[in-house]
Amino acid sequence: MSKRLFIAAVFMSAAAVLGFAQDSGGAAVWGWNESLDMIWLFLGASLVFVMQAGFALVETGLTRAKNAVNIVMKNMMDFCIGSLVYWAVGWGLMYGADRAGGLFGVGSFFKNVMDDPVFYRDWFFQVVFAATSATIVSGAVAERTQFKSYLIYTVFISALIYPVSGHWIWGGGWLSKLGFYDFAGSTVVHSVGGWAALIGAAVIGPRTGKYTKGQNGKLSPKAIPGHNIPLAMLGVFLLWFGWYGFNGASTLSGSDSTIARVCVTTTLGASAGAIAALCTSWILFKKPDSSMSMNGALAGLVAITAPCAVVTPGGAIAIGLIAGVLVVLAVEFIDKVLHIDDPVGASSVHLVCGIWGTLAVGIWGNVEGTARGLLHGGGFAQLGRQALGVLSVGAWAGLMSLVLFIVIKAATGLRVTRKEEMIGLDISEHKAEAYTGFQIFSNM
Amino acid sequence: MSKRLFIAAVFMSAAAVLGFAQDSGGAAVWGWNESLDMIWLFLGASLVFVMQAGFALVETGLTRAKNAVNIVMKNMMDFCIGSLVYWAVGWGLMYGADRAGGLFGVGSFFKNVMDDPVFYRDWFFQVVFAATSATIVSGAVAERTQFKSYLIYTVFISALIYPVSGHWIWGGGWLSKLGFYDFAGSTVVHSVGGWAALIGAAVIGPRTGKYTKGQNGKLSPKAIPGHNIPLAMLGVFLLWFGWYGFNGASTLSGSDSTIARVCVTTTLGASAGAIAALCTSWILFKKPDSSMSMNGALAGLVAITAPCAVVTPGGAIAIGLIAGVLVVLAVEFIDKVLHIDDPVGASSVHLVCGIWGTLAVGIWGNVEGTARGLLHGGGFAQLGRQALGVLSVGAWAGLMSLVLFIVIKAATGLRVTRKEEMIGLDISEHKAEAYTGFQIFSNM
Amino acid sequence: MSKRLFIAAVFMSAAAVLGFAQDSGGAAVWGWNESLDMIWLFLGASLVFVMQAGFALVETGLTRAKNAVNIVMKNMMDFCIGSLVYWAVGWGLMYGADRAGGLFGVGSFFKNVMDDPVFYRDWFFQVVFAATSATIVSGAVAERTQFKSYLIYTVFISALIYPVSGHWIWGGGWLSKLGFYDFAGSTVVHSVGGWAALIGAAVIGPRTGKYTKGQNGKLSPKAIPGHNIPLAMLGVFLLWFGWYGFNGASTLSGSDSTIARVCVTTTLGASAGAIAALCTSWILFKKPDSSMSMNGALAGLVAITAPCAVVTPGGAIAIGLIAGVLVVLAVEFIDKVLHIDDPVGASSVHLVCGIWGTLAVGIWGNVEGTARGLLHGGGFAQLGRQALGVLSVGAWAGLMSLVLFIVIKAATGLRVTRKEEMIGLDISEHKAEAYTGFQIFSNM
Repeated sequence: MSKRLFIAAVFMSAAAVLGFAQDSGGAAVWGWNESLDMIWLFLGASLVFVMQAGFALVETGLTRAKNAVNIVMKNMMDFCIGSLVYWAVGWGLMYGADRAGGLFGVGSFFKNVMDDPVFYRDWFFQVVFAATSATIVSGAVAERTQFKSYLIYTVFISALIYPVSGHWIWGGGWLSKLGFYDFAGSTVVHSVGGWAALIGAAVIGPRTGKYTKGQNGKLSPKAIPGHNIPLAMLGVFLLWFGWYGFNGASTLSGSDSTIARVCVTTTLGASAGAIAALCTSWILFKKPDSSMSMNGALAGLVAITAPCAVVTPGGAIAIGLIAGVLVVLAVEFIDKVLHIDDPVGASSVHLVCGIWGTLAVGIWGNVEGTARGLLHGGGFAQLGRQALGVLSVGAWAGLMSLVLFIVIKAATGLRVTRKEEMIGLDISEHKAEAYTGFQIFSNM
Repeated sequence: MSKRLFIAAVFMSAAAVLGFAQDSGGAAVWGWNESLDMIWLFLGASLVFVMQAGFALVETGLTRAKNAVNIVMKNMMDFCIGSLVYWAVGWGLMYGADRAGGLFGVGSFFKNVMDDPVFYRDWFFQVVFAATSATIVSGAVAERTQFKSYLIYTVFISALIYPVSGHWIWGGGWLSKLGFYDFAGSTVVHSVGGWAALIGAAVIGPRTGKYTKGQNGKLSPKAIPGHNIPLAMLGVFLLWFGWYGFNGASTLSGSDSTIARVCVTTTLGASAGAIAALCTSWILFKKPDSSMSMNGALAGLVAITAPCAVVTPGGAIAIGLIAGVLVVLAVEFIDKVLHIDDPVGASSVHLVCGIWGTLAVGIWGNVEGTARGLLHGGGFAQLGRQALGVLSVGAWAGLMSLVLFIVIKAATGLRVTRKEEMIGLDISEHKAEAYTGFQIFSNM
Repeated sequence: MSKRLFIAAVFMSAAAVLGFAQDSGGAAVWGWNESLDMIWLFLGASLVFVMQAGFALVETGLTRAKNAVNIVMKNMMDFCIGSLVYWAVGWGLMYGADRAGGLFGVGSFFKNVMDDPVFYRDWFFQVVFAATSATIVSGAVAERTQFKSYLIYTVFISALIYPVSGHWIWGGGWLSKLGFYDFAGSTVVHSVGGWAALIGAAVIGPRTGKYTKGQNGKLSPKAIPGHNIPLAMLGVFLLWFGWYGFNGASTLSGSDSTIARVCVTTTLGASAGAIAALCTSWILFKKPDSSMSMNGALAGLVAITAPCAVVTPGGAIAIGLIAGVLVVLAVEFIDKVLHIDDPVGASSVHLVCGIWGTLAVGIWGNVEGTARGLLHGGGFAQLGRQALGVLSVGAWAGLMSLVLFIVIKAATGLRVTRKEEMIGLDISEHKAEAYTGFQIFSNM
């Protein structure tokens, strides 16, 4: 009982200190413009929050039953830790006053005021984007990563990696000054998460049994099917639903008619992505593959995220179709050529199609003075700016992720033991089963 | 690898062509009225989108585990295909310039402009309704239909069947001119999908083992229980949630106080439907049946969809109660008398209660100049108009569905083989299992 | 068949009577302020509705497979019954004209008007709160309660218990006049439901096999793990999502900048709760426990509900951290000391943390003239008012629940038989299985 009292005491004293905040105050009553913006961003952010559930279900559904508790725990806790960390540090790095020639922001750390509704409104909308970036990695490193190590990773992507490149693009930093354009985050959110996913999966190594060496000395990959396709599909629907907030509310204004365009391009891009992936898998593998089709819809969504405000419906379909083909080829390439084990295809969806969507702005972009692409008389100028952004964010996020995962590996270890992996992370890490009472084949 | 390059090339050239769009431009900044309408329709449409997830779960949960991948794939792909088709053709037929005395619209096919926010806004709100109509059929033809044939069907309902009768009622066509009233689509959406569901299920025939001939020569139906009731119930909750957008945003205006009435009547209609179906099943079958209760809630929602804006709370309860009784009787009648195998009761819910709700406008409708029904001094005039709409839409949707399913059957075949049906469509059509690792009885 | 006609006839005559309503009319077109309030409350209420799905999943996931149909049925039907009852009686008791010195309201029973958009708007927002309070109990009495008895209980909490104390606080009653402050319902909603949950669980007694008497004569509890952790986690995400409507829209105005503060404090409170519960369980039980972490997030949400509009981000974190510790200690205490069997921890989450959040207003509250707490120069005055509210609502809800459950027990019985409990409520109460076809261990 003394242990319990101790815990309570620790938290209570920590808590009391936190409570001593700045000034008090009431609330402003706003005009229609500010009010509409506020509820638009509020509802948009709430929709983006639902994407956390979507990620959790997609990743759970596409992996094995013995690791399902672990996956949903990672997906909940990375949001919880990420939101505190982004409040404490991340927001200030991303949206604080510009320093070092646009490299990062400074200010507003641990911001604890009572009366700053604009800060509150903007922070809520931004924290859900930060959390999206962080959670992308969860699926790529699934089924063999220590829970503890994953939580450490999540602190650093939310506090440092995401906010710094975010500052370059959305915080008034150097890339935005050069004319790089990323409307809702194909690069800012998805490719940053995608780089961390790819590198995390590479550093941590494949799941035991995933690759076996044949007699010719070549590695051949084994398919490890997911355990709950309906749940994964529900995840796709929830992600798509949330994406309307992700893209739509990225106007940051409720009275900007661009919202109307965004909802159409987002819908058509996602649909085209799913159809293209379905057809590609049907031709390549002789079956209308469900996980490829799901990833195709997500690929279309990721790709249309950067250009959704500056392309026509036809452009959106084009971008989505290509994303749907790309994601299938990328999944094959990463698995069969690179031999990196990404159980849910997170890097193919978020990194490859995040890059693709970012470049597509330079091809189909069609708004004078913002993003005028190759097909609309803009020449290669915008495409060049987009490529610069892709490369520099890739360098930052890739390098930082590499350092981070190597340091965690050295410091606390990244993987569970082979025995723990065989038993499953639910029992070895959480001492729990996901589906108590159900007969599940032990060798899966 | 050359095959892959080929695929990529095909998509890329197709895509490049699509990308050459019309004029460029910026965005308008709207006043409060237009802005509020835009975000109202945007959020309403996003809620209606969630109904796709709801349908997928209800249908998956109420059918067998061996067909779960197939069902969720149908539900995702019909939205994806439907949205492209509705952009290309459907929208123009439904909302293009009125032709042939109100029979269909013409214009705005493949509409690929940059600056038409009103079109964007309205298209997004309409496409999710079109998709709802299409996806209703999925459950009725579940567990024995070829995936390919289902995709062909979905093209035609989204491109032709739904838009034409939609034009009659919402596109300014002949029924609307005669005073037919359907606020949010009991007829436009639900009964059209319901007709296709009933006729599809009839043409394709029952699942193997569903009806057995007894010694007296009579067919006796066998109950084939669904495999995941909690998932089905989640689907009902998501459908109900989405229905608030379906009915609420059908005001098409964010400043029309009718919204407030709609939310109340929708809630009470659904609740009354569930209670009535629960009681009816309890009396008839001596048990508080879960699938009947779920269908009762949906029946109440379908029925209140047409009249939700023109009835009082009491009227909504009355309409919902009757819908809840009707749906149970209809499920029994279609199964035991007509011997049509509709695994999830889609035609009872959407067709029977869609008709009921449409007629109810002529009984409980209470708005002068719009829809004044029998119980409120309007005589039989409105009821007659509603019956005319039910009959003519029934003739159109019923006949077209019949032709469509017969043509598909002749051209490519509708059913999988008996052996494929036994194995389950997940393995035979998609070469996948929904629940890898779980022990599932093979004879189910 | 005559039985069926009978049923139909009964409902139809009942329905026809209900349909005779008051005056007819059209709709008002509102200015931006009223319009924004309407759609804000509409969307907020729709989000709160989703919490019904969240509760259903959390409770289903944390209990056994053999009772899953029963749980989801309870969760749907309590909303359906509750909404009719709250329309008929509850609303009038809560928001009718103040009587008996603030003890209850009178008026607006069975309100069946055509033209009162303000009533419609407010009723819809309130009914989903009433339903939340009712549904909290479902999990606490899970796995051994008769379906019929549960439905009877739900009538009384929605018609009487919730509305009366609700009137005291939100309906202009005596507690509100004394300065008691509960922004979105830590007390009004959660602790009322929590009292009913605790007392219901106590009166009905533990599940068979839950407590066994050891050789020393002491009762020792046995852990009965839930059957679907991913589903439970999805429930937590949906609850959290819905909570943004719960807390956010409780401003009752779409142009009150307090909304912005609320979204931040709600997010941070929930995150802090989950982290604290994770750490507490890790220290106490040597494992990062999933159900404790989930309950920690919910604990943080419940606790921040009362103070979310009057505290800073730091205050919210403090309140959430303590809630996360408290919920783990409370679960242990109720199980191991009180020996009350609450299968999902509903009373720990909603009662204990509802009380905690209500008191926290008196500690961290920081708005002059509304709620100025201990840490911000308000002395003990506000804390005293909060404690008075906690005690008086506890007395009312606790006593009424006790009487209610004892009367139901005497009148119709509360529990199923031991044999029915062993078989599971799905088969014994609903003659259905939740997961037909799956191999499930019969002894669970």
